[in-house]
Amino acid sequence: MRCFVTGCAGFIGSLLTERLLSAGHSVVGLDNLSTGQERFLSGAREYSSFRWVHADVLDPASLTAGMSGSEFVFHLAANADVRFGFEHPHRDLEQNILATHAVLEAMRKNGIGRIAFSSSGSVYGDTPWVPTPEDARFPIHTSLYGASKAASEGLITAYCAGFGFQSYIFRFVSILGERYTHGHIVDFYRQLRSDASTLRVLGDGRQRKSYLYVQDCIDAMLLAIDRSHERVNIFNLGTNDHCEVNESIRWICEALRVTPRIDYSGGDRGWIGDNPFIFLDTAKISALGWRPTLTIRQGVLRTLEYLRTNPDLLERRR
Amino acid sequence: MRCFVTGCAGFIGSLLTERLLSAGHSVVGLDNLSTGQERFLSGAREYSSFRWVHADVLDPASLTAGMSGSEFVFHLAANADVRFGFEHPHRDLEQNILATHAVLEAMRKNGIGRIAFSSSGSVYGDTPWVPTPEDARFPIHTSLYGASKAASEGLITAYCAGFGFQSYIFRFVSILGERYTHGHIVDFYRQLRSDASTLRVLGDGRQRKSYLYVQDCIDAMLLAIDRSHERVNIFNLGTNDHCEVNESIRWICEALRVTPRIDYSGGDRGWIGDNPFIFLDTAKISALGWRPTLTIRQGVLRTLEYLRTNPDLLERRR
Repeated sequence: MRCFVTGCAGFIGSLLTERLLSAGHSVVGLDNLSTGQERFLSGAREYSSFRWVHADVLDPASLTAGMSGSEFVFHLAANADVRFGFEHPHRDLEQNILATHAVLEAMRKNGIGRIAFSSSGSVYGDTPWVPTPEDARFPIHTSLYGASKAASEGLITAYCAGFGFQSYIFRFVSILGERYTHGHIVDFYRQLRSDASTLRVLGDGRQRKSYLYVQDCIDAMLLAIDRSHERVNIFNLGTNDHCEVNESIRWICEALRVTPRIDYSGGDRGWIGDNPFIFLDTAKISALGWRPTLTIRQGVLRTLEYLRTNPDLLERRR
Repeated sequence: MRCFVTGCAGFIGSLLTERLLSAGHSVVGLDNLSTGQERFLSGAREYSSFRWVHADVLDPASLTAGMSGSEFVFHLAANADVRFGFEHPHRDLEQNILATHAVLEAMRKNGIGRIAFSSSGSVYGDTPWVPTPEDARFPIHTSLYGASKAASEGLITAYCAGFGFQSYIFRFVSILGERYTHGHIVDFYRQLRSDASTLRVLGDGRQRKSYLYVQDCIDAMLLAIDRSHERVNIFNLGTNDHCEVNESIRWICEALRVTPRIDYSGGDRGWIGDNPFIFLDTAKISALGWRPTLTIRQGVLRTLEYLRTNPDLLERRR
């Protein structure tokens, strides 16, 4: 299959690209390196069936030309900074909604009709229904990130109805693993590395989080594309488990053999618009035979190990 | 209350503006006359408490300056052409999503925190759950119009969470009445006026539709703003009734005393992405004491009467 991957130098995008290449597919990847990192392309570059387009998704000419000849689009480029939506209220609009629209239009111009999209469990807003199934109640959004991901989904499914596209929409919990470069674990490890005596934690540490290991996430995406053949295919991707932020802190501190004083900022949310708990019902993807290979604890520790062996990633403050 | 109304020269916007003015509020209205008509402003212009800003919602400077000093924003400007989304895939994005974002940003710059938004029953997508309650299942969108209205809602509620806004989101069925200038009834009357022997009907005529009379719609909006005080207030607005397109054709033909041959285009939808049936559960607004004053039949006939006495409106093909 001739694949096109937006965000090919990002955390998930670069690992997906390598998986596609190793499975014998060709990949044209697009990335502007705003979040992605060129070093993450080194594995893909070992394949002659890989080509990188160094451009922004919002540059329509590069996007349309780069996509030419592809059969399937993986749209992973996005504003990944969930936390700062309200400091930059244009960012989610541009990098999520407008970017997705640009991808859909470029597909239409190229006659490409199949798309996989990295959505998020935050599309359910502040739902009381947990674990949350794919057909949960109508969301009331509390974050620009969640609103923009839901808006992107809406555009994609409308293109399915209007232009005969087929879509795979994956609603992720937080993903971690190798090449993970932002979020709780990076924050905690960065702090403890510079001063192991104190750890500042947003909220009260009781926030529950569900995490999924990145390779398990990619397994699920590829399986769904292989096995599910509806016009619109929507899957929650997560584990049947969750942890408290305090638990992940304990795992990290034990692994690092440190015993910091924990300094909580207070409140039950990490930041304004943070969902206190995203925990997804994964019965639908499980019914296809998928199971995660790592527990949340194993995923956290694997991520920590990756950061310890790649400390230069911590220097690059985004 | 100092009100700001986008789309103040439109069908609903101009009638709402007059109602606000007659209730003693002041109104600054913004309209670019792309859909609205200057003649619809004549009633408002009789009030010294009215001022018109002739500008586009997507002109940030005019929008922000025009809004200065207002306390409450009614955001009604929109792409009203539900049917042609797939012929112009940028239009809903720009005139609905980007326009709503522009309004929210202008409000934030002006320190205005209250907004009413004209959304649509099409936000529920192609739901099997009818009559559809406000907390229906997660929508899968089949029209760009519905997707863009849902996206606009998401931005609004995220601004409520992030910036402390209060919002009133009204999900309309099709609205009709005086100043209605596009849709089934205009199409049918225009055809019958030029040739009463044949009527071309999209679909099979069995499409069911729920309509609401515009003044009943405005009553409900003003009542909800008066009585409901949540951070996010979402209301379906419609009647507890519906009709088939064939019924409205019969009412129109009887009123006009014509007996055309009906020429159906076939299929169960009027156009690609048309929801075959939008019928909303209106228990929530009814619980506030609201009742529509006109039945669907009365609304159709009142609309027809308005078109007959304002035939020049039919000349202006949009």
